[in-house]
This record gives sequence, C-alpha cells and structure tokens, in this order.
Amino acid sequence: MSRLDSFIRRLKAQRVCLDLAAGLVGDLEGEVLELGLGNGRTYDHLRQLFPNRNIYVCERTVAAHPQCIPPPELLLLGDMRETLPAARQRLAGRVALAHLDPASGNVAPSRALAEELAPLIVPLLRPGGILVSEPTVHAAELTALALPERVDPGRYNLYRRVSSRG
Amino acid sequence: MSRLDSFIRRLKAQRVCLDLAAGLVGDLEGEVLELGLGNGRTYDHLRQLFPNRNIYVCERTVAAHPQCIPPPELLLLGDMRETLPAARQRLAGRVALAHLDPASGNVAPSRALAEELAPLIVPLLRPGGILVSEPTVHAAELTALALPERVDPGRYNLYRRVSSRG
Repeated sequence: MSRLDSFIRRLKAQRVCLDLAAGLVGDLEGEVLELGLGNGRTYDHLRQLFPNRNIYVCERTVAAHPQCIPPPELLLLGDMRETLPAARQRLAGRVALAHLDPASGNVAPSRALAEELAPLIVPLLRPGGILVSEPTVHAAELTALALPERVDPGRYNLYRRVSSRG
Repeated sequence: MSRLDSFIRRLKAQRVCLDLAAGLVGDLEGEVLELGLGNGRTYDHLRQLFPNRNIYVCERTVAAHPQCIPPPELLLLGDMRETLPAARQRLAGRVALAHLDPASGNVAPSRALAEELAPLIVPLLRPGGILVSEPTVHAAELTALALPERVDPGRYNLYRRVSSRG
C-alpha cells in the first residue's frame, strides 16, 4: 500500500467517523470543537454536518483556504495546551462533539500530543459527548465506541464521555 | 459536497488515473517524471507502480516525508520553468509517463501553470507517452484519452503524445 493509498484510507475513515458521530450527537445539544484547522477541509465538512451549531476551532496559526476560516469569535488562537485550559470557563461540559487529528502523518508525535491534550479536552465534553480522534486517546472518562464497518481498527477512533468527572 | 469530500474524490481520481496510465505505458520503455514532489505521497505511489524505472522528480524545495525523498541524481531541483528546459538534453523524447498536479487547490493558478509548463513537458515525452494531469493541458502534440469510469470529466486528465513535433 502506497502512502497515497494510506492517505485516502485515512481521509475516508475520518469522514465516515465524523458522519457517524454527527448522528450519535444528533439529540445532544452542544458545541462542536475542531482541534486544529489546517487547510480547513475537515472544518468545512463539520460546517456541513452541523449548520446550526457553533464550531469552535483551535489553531496556532491560521493558514486555511480563504473560504474555510472560522469567525474570529469562535477561533481559539494559539497553542492548544494553553488555549484549551483558557476556554474551560466558556466551554466546560458544553461540547457535544470534538475532533482531534494532528495530521502530522507521524504516529508517535500524534499519540504523544493526544495524551497531552486528553486531560484538557475531556472536561469540555458534555456527558454523552463524542470525541473523534485519529490517534488513540486514554482517559478514565472516555469509553471507546464501535467504529463504522469500513474502518480498520486503530485507523481512527471514536470515544464517548461516560462520566462527569474531570 | 464539502472540501473534504472534494479532496477525497480528487485523490481517488488521481490514483485511478495513474493506475490506468501505468497499464497504458506497460509496453513503452522510458522514464517517469513527477512534476512536483510535495509531501511525496504520489511519488511513493509511482514508485510502487514503476519499481524498475527511473522516476525523475521536479521540486523547488524538498519538504517531503523522509521515506519519500528521491535519490539526488533523479531530483530536478528548482523552478520547473528553468529545470525542465535544462533537463531536455537528458530527457527529451525519453519520458513514458509524466504526472502534473500543482495541488494548490486553486483552479485558475493551476491551469495557468499547466499552460506555461505544457510546452516544456511535451518535448520530454516519448511519442505514445502519457501525461496525467490534474489541470487541463492544451498542446498540439497531445490528444485527450478517455478517463477511467469512476472519474468525472475534468476532475483529472489523461493525454497521449501522438506526434513527434516539438
């Protein structure tokens, strides 16, 4: 499998996981949180899935397609290790769906970042809220959900916040 | 259709066009030319399609995945408007398959670049050689080929060099 094959599979896994998660939170009020804007493709997909929700976006430096730049009041600009704690007052327990994809293409740094960010993301999720994540995430409050049929285990990950701890 | 949907479709179109083109040049000796390395995903796919051919790669500044960096003797480093004419002595009439994808996501600049590069690419192609291109390309020596079934017209393009002019 070439890196092109692998990339296509990852993007398709991302999309089908987000589409499934959107259904899972259909009856759960709350905000959406995109952890990393990048070129804005996934943000654009989230906008289509959630036309009536606020989509908060974390990004260090905005370099997205001009049509995919979030409104300034929903942009958490800076290092997520700082902006996520700072957003706690506004967003704690209010996020219905969060999406994390460091998109570095490098497994080890992505996992390390995910482990570092997990304790900062979890408190923002509503009980019952969903975290869609490319890297695996470990947290006592999160339980892994079944993946869509076409997604190989480990390629993408879905979690639900089951406890209100944190 | 979100930009994520559109991107996935473009990558799948790229892959199926390259796979088809590889079959079309199966009996045609010659080099492969990748016009732009980027992160190296497509180069990696070409390496798998053509394990026994030289794959020349044009790139202004190499910033690819470490496992996708071409050997220095096959790297044409610099602006393609300069490196393609400079490569003519080595490659004229010797390329069996060339691939052009500016991957900017912006249609107008991609087409403009393709029109500018076409007269520099065509002389490198063997008669019968194939150009796989994301933007449309116009040149007297090129004839458009039928796309694979799953590719919408205009999403990707296949051309064969039919004359030895140029």
